[in-house]
Amino acid sequence: MNLSAHISKIARAAKQSSLKLALTPTAERNRALLLMAKALEADSGYIMAENAKDLAEARRLRYAPALVDRLTLDPKRIKDMADGVRATAGLKDPVGQLLETIKRPNGLLIKKIRVPLGVVGIIYESRPNVTSDCAALCIKSANAAILKGGREAIHSNKAIFKVLKRALAKTKIPVEALQLIESVDRQAVHELLRLEHLLDMIVPRGGEDLIRFVAENTRIPVVKHFQGICHVYVSKKADLDMARNITMNAKTQKPGVCNAMETLLVDQAVAKKFLPAAIADLKNAGCEIRGDQAVRSLIKVGIKKATPKDWHTEYLDLILSVKVVNGLQEAVAHINNYGSHHSDAIVTRDQKEAQAFLDQVDSACVYVNASTRFTDGFEFGFGAEVGISTDKLHVRGPMALDGLTTYKYEVYGSGQVRT
Amino acid sequence: MNLSAHISKIARAAKQSSLKLALTPTAERNRALLLMAKALEADSGYIMAENAKDLAEARRLRYAPALVDRLTLDPKRIKDMADGVRATAGLKDPVGQLLETIKRPNGLLIKKIRVPLGVVGIIYESRPNVTSDCAALCIKSANAAILKGGREAIHSNKAIFKVLKRALAKTKIPVEALQLIESVDRQAVHELLRLEHLLDMIVPRGGEDLIRFVAENTRIPVVKHFQGICHVYVSKKADLDMARNITMNAKTQKPGVCNAMETLLVDQAVAKKFLPAAIADLKNAGCEIRGDQAVRSLIKVGIKKATPKDWHTEYLDLILSVKVVNGLQEAVAHINNYGSHHSDAIVTRDQKEAQAFLDQVDSACVYVNASTRFTDGFEFGFGAEVGISTDKLHVRGPMALDGLTTYKYEVYGSGQVRT
Repeated sequence: MNLSAHISKIARAAKQSSLKLALTPTAERNRALLLMAKALEADSGYIMAENAKDLAEARRLRYAPALVDRLTLDPKRIKDMADGVRATAGLKDPVGQLLETIKRPNGLLIKKIRVPLGVVGIIYESRPNVTSDCAALCIKSANAAILKGGREAIHSNKAIFKVLKRALAKTKIPVEALQLIESVDRQAVHELLRLEHLLDMIVPRGGEDLIRFVAENTRIPVVKHFQGICHVYVSKKADLDMARNITMNAKTQKPGVCNAMETLLVDQAVAKKFLPAAIADLKNAGCEIRGDQAVRSLIKVGIKKATPKDWHTEYLDLILSVKVVNGLQEAVAHINNYGSHHSDAIVTRDQKEAQAFLDQVDSACVYVNASTRFTDGFEFGFGAEVGISTDKLHVRGPMALDGLTTYKYEVYGSGQVRT
Repeated sequence: MNLSAHISKIARAAKQSSLKLALTPTAERNRALLLMAKALEADSGYIMAENAKDLAEARRLRYAPALVDRLTLDPKRIKDMADGVRATAGLKDPVGQLLETIKRPNGLLIKKIRVPLGVVGIIYESRPNVTSDCAALCIKSANAAILKGGREAIHSNKAIFKVLKRALAKTKIPVEALQLIESVDRQAVHELLRLEHLLDMIVPRGGEDLIRFVAENTRIPVVKHFQGICHVYVSKKADLDMARNITMNAKTQKPGVCNAMETLLVDQAVAKKFLPAAIADLKNAGCEIRGDQAVRSLIKVGIKKATPKDWHTEYLDLILSVKVVNGLQEAVAHINNYGSHHSDAIVTRDQKEAQAFLDQVDSACVYVNASTRFTDGFEFGFGAEVGISTDKLHVRGPMALDGLTTYKYEVYGSGQVRT
């Protein structure tokens, strides 16, 4: 069978099974997840043996240590994967939820009911745990999943997938609801992206290049987050100790993630009082500072010059651009112009100013007096995370089980016709 | 200024104004709508004079009578447009609605708030009333609108637009929130479709060709309905009088619309009892019947042979394909396979069978004992309709004001940082 026919066959099987999966009771889907979790732990030896093949190849090809680390599985990490699947089993079932009831004067009763999307494609990079995370989220929300992991993790992914399928086979969930594309040929992704009549959504998880590649090569709806260019704005009405603490946390607690701060904005009225200490903190933490003219006049040494490109840049690293602004309106304008509409914070004691910031900043998550680092499905209490959407349609911000669903209208009549 | 620069300028003005518009109070947006409605009536003479130019051109080019009718404005139709704008003013404001409140153990308070999308592009064909309908829906939901109507209605659209803008200028709503693309050059649409950084959504309103053209030529999210291939399934447990009534209504009450039935499915157990009378009704109403073999053996005369293509066809006309099926499962499989996931109905007295149909048919609107013709924003009680979505993401089925919004998370802290 050629690749195109093979990928089509996988997608058709997923689609076919999705109709059955949508009808399975909550309890059976949860039982499947608990069996999947148990199987991951029971078969951890097999999974690690297969993982060792990926690691050997990674060493042979001299991959960067960070990549090798992301690839590596050990008993602790496999237990974490199993615990993640178990936690998903414990979440509220989104399927069948009654979202709205409408009673019409003509007697029609309309129920808006949450239902699975159908078939969800997930394209990801090197982390093998995404295979079990996404399989669990899809089974929980009664969606068939087509998984396509990175070539670096192919042996690990195949092993995890095999273990999960074996567990699924002990349940009434159709085993075809989980599909893994094993081909490492890039053409396989292209073939998948063409199947808009069979897939209901694609979620790319990984770097910006992957996300852009997927978004630009398919007509299947894509939920994506391109970038997190997040800001903290320190108002002249800020509690400056709090601002210092939030600044440090938002930049340095985990600089390589999308909800970390990339640009600090400071009101000119407090710049002199706030910046020297805040910048000293950041430098002590190993952070490079790129400042505008005002920052560089205040702190003469050790500040690189920020270029216009810096305001557009997601460093994902211990680098921070800093700008002095003239009040709230300039801060808001900067954020809406240069930001990525992901997560932005104001530090202020003035409630009215806080509300103006919340109202005017056009981002998925807008914070008052808290670190941008909280933009996360778990931190928001959703219990799971598919990703964080910077799109405005369908789902915005942290995406959890609800983002894997749509709704239908069930209309109950007694012979009504339209006149 | 060349076309590309001109369209960009329009979109930038819309984007800029959308930030201000989002902050306007409900009362001011409603006041603007009432002034717009009044202005349409007050200036109906001017609008009709401009409309006469389009009509003269339409006659010169020998347009089909149906198209000329769609183009034509008279005092009654202008009053209807004004009444539509007034009705929109009376709807509940979606903006600012609190969708969810989350209180986290660390003290963070998270509010999920409905907000406007920002800038909405609407591309439509010959009906001039779409100009005022869509302008009203966008202003109501605090979105800037970029309107692009058909070349046939250009004088009418310019006149309506001018009248609406003049009314807007008397309010605190930024007048740039309404934009009309006056160029009739097809390239203007292409230029608009490229501006994914300035537009948040595109809604194409019109025939399938227009919708497909838009969807295939932009990265801006598109909410669309391609087709309405709607079914009525008459179960062996149906009240056959009710089934006859619903069949007639779903097919003949307004055959040219997307929620009209295109295929009738009948259980074999009642085919002999049901079909002769039902088909006689339809034929009396001028309807052509295309039947499968079973239908043609039951009714020997005047039934064309249905080909496989018929099951895929949206006639939008007095034509009906008819198929005899062996029970619920065959009906469901046929609908999910050949339908367009728009609106489908079962006629049955058996509640369990009804629920199985509701659960298994993968369509936006699924009916029990009612005509598919009710799929409509007004009939659902939404008070307005942007269109009917056959997409599954963002909005499904009748789309009203909520479909013109997204949400943001407002997070209130007291210095929380992530550990």
